[in-house]
Amino acid sequence: MKIAVTGKGGVGKTTLSSILSYLFASYGKNVISVDADPDANLASALGISREESNKIRPIAELGELIEERTGAKPGSMGGIFKLNPKVDDLPEGLGYKLNGITLLVMGKSKAALSGCYCPENVLLRRLLKHLVVERDEVVIVDMEAGIEHLTRGTAGSVDAFIVVVEPGQRSIQTASLVREMAGELGVKKVFVVANKVRTEEDLNFIRNVIGDMELIGHITFSDAIVEADIKGISPYSYSPQTVDEVRNIKVAIEKVLDAG
Amino acid sequence: MKIAVTGKGGVGKTTLSSILSYLFASYGKNVISVDADPDANLASALGISREESNKIRPIAELGELIEERTGAKPGSMGGIFKLNPKVDDLPEGLGYKLNGITLLVMGKSKAALSGCYCPENVLLRRLLKHLVVERDEVVIVDMEAGIEHLTRGTAGSVDAFIVVVEPGQRSIQTASLVREMAGELGVKKVFVVANKVRTEEDLNFIRNVIGDMELIGHITFSDAIVEADIKGISPYSYSPQTVDEVRNIKVAIEKVLDAG
Repeated sequence: MKIAVTGKGGVGKTTLSSILSYLFASYGKNVISVDADPDANLASALGISREESNKIRPIAELGELIEERTGAKPGSMGGIFKLNPKVDDLPEGLGYKLNGITLLVMGKSKAALSGCYCPENVLLRRLLKHLVVERDEVVIVDMEAGIEHLTRGTAGSVDAFIVVVEPGQRSIQTASLVREMAGELGVKKVFVVANKVRTEEDLNFIRNVIGDMELIGHITFSDAIVEADIKGISPYSYSPQTVDEVRNIKVAIEKVLDAG
Repeated sequence: MKIAVTGKGGVGKTTLSSILSYLFASYGKNVISVDADPDANLASALGISREESNKIRPIAELGELIEERTGAKPGSMGGIFKLNPKVDDLPEGLGYKLNGITLLVMGKSKAALSGCYCPENVLLRRLLKHLVVERDEVVIVDMEAGIEHLTRGTAGSVDAFIVVVEPGQRSIQTASLVREMAGELGVKKVFVVANKVRTEEDLNFIRNVIGDMELIGHITFSDAIVEADIKGISPYSYSPQTVDEVRNIKVAIEKVLDAG
C-alpha cells in the first residue's frame, strides 16, 4: 500500500499521515513514513520529542551524500550528474525507527535560496520512486501540495492520493488543482478526506463543492488535536475519537482499493 | 512600507495579508499585494470572485513573457539567461486592481515538476526585488515559509517580516526556522503575530515558547473567518473584530518601525 497525503497547508495532512502510519503499524505492517513537505513536521506529529527530532538531518541537507550519489554539489546549476543515483540503502541507513515505523525526512536544501537545487531534487525524486515502486512496506508520504516531487513515472505507482480539505473555499481550490495534476500524472485514485468538520452543515458544504471527487471519510474538529500539538504529543495517543475516525477512513480506502 | 508575511501553512498568513492590504488602502495608500505562496489564494481572501480570479494568470505560468524577459524557456536547465530581466512594467501590466490594491500572483510553474525552474525563479526574484527595493507603494508579500524567493540582496530591504503562529508546537518550529533564516538574510525586524488564540492560556503558551521573538499582537479564533472562507467573502468585510485586531497590529508595527 502506497499512499500520498496532500492538500493545502494547515488542513491536517501531517495529523492524518501520522495516525495512518500508527494504524498500519498497529496491524503489524512495516511502515515507511515520508515527510516530503518542508513546511510539515511529521516527526513531531509522530510524538518524537523535539530533542530527538533535532537529530534527524533532512536528506536534502546531506550535502556529502548528495554529491557522492549524484556526482554533483548541492545547489549547483546545470552541469552533469547521475540521474539514477543509488538510493535503496537509504531507508535503512537514514530512517528514524519507532514502533514499526521508519521515518524519512526529505527536507529542502538551503541551496534553494540560490533558485536551483537540481542534484538534491534528483536524489529525492529517485528515493521517492524507489519507495513507491520498489518497496514492499506500507509507504505513507506526507506531501506538499503541488506534488513537484512526484514525477510522471512515480505517481502511477501510488495506490491513492488522499487530498485533505477543511470547510472553506481555499482548501477546496487546492484540492481541485491537486486532482487535475494527479490526473495528468496518471494517479489511479484520488480520495478526499474532510477535516475540521464542526457541523453537518460543514460536511454538506464540502460534499457540494468537491463535485465528483470521492469523499472517503471525515474527521471532526477536535480541541484534542490542538492540545496534542501544544503539548508535543502524537495525535494518535491523545485523541481516540480522531483515531477511530481515521481507522474508518483506512478501512474505506482498503475496501475501494481491494474492489478495484 | 514593505512587509512580508510568513509562517507555517494554514496559520492565517493570507487572512492577515488581505486585511493589512485593505487597511493600508483605506488610509489612502497605494498597495501592492503579492501572492508569493503557491499554496495560498490571496485573491479569494481579498474577496475577488472565483470567476474573476480564474482569469488571473500566475506570472510563473506566463511562458512567453518569461522567455522574452530572461531569454530562456521556462523549465530549461542550465543554459544562459539574463539574470537582470526588465520587470518594472509588470505591476501595472499584470496586476489585478481593486480598491487601491494591485494584486500580483507569482505562482509556481508546472515546469517545477521537471525539478528545475530557473528562468521562472529568476524573473520572480527580480520582480520581488523591484517591488521591495524600487517601489514607493506599500508592498505586502504573502509568502511561503522557507523564503526561497527572497534572496540576500532583497530581504534587507523589507521593513519587517511578520511570522504568524497559532497555538501549537509545529507553527512555532516553523517560526524559529524563519527567524533564523531571516537573520542570515539581513532582515531588519521579525515580529510574531499569534493567530487563532482561543484563551489567555493559548496566548501565554505562545508568549512562553517564542523566546525572544517579539510578539506584536494577536488575533482571536473566529468562526467568522471560517465562514468568510466558506462563503468566499473577504475577512475584511466579514469579521469586524478581526479587522480591529489587525488594525492594532498595524499601529504597533508602524510605531516600532518609526521608533527604529
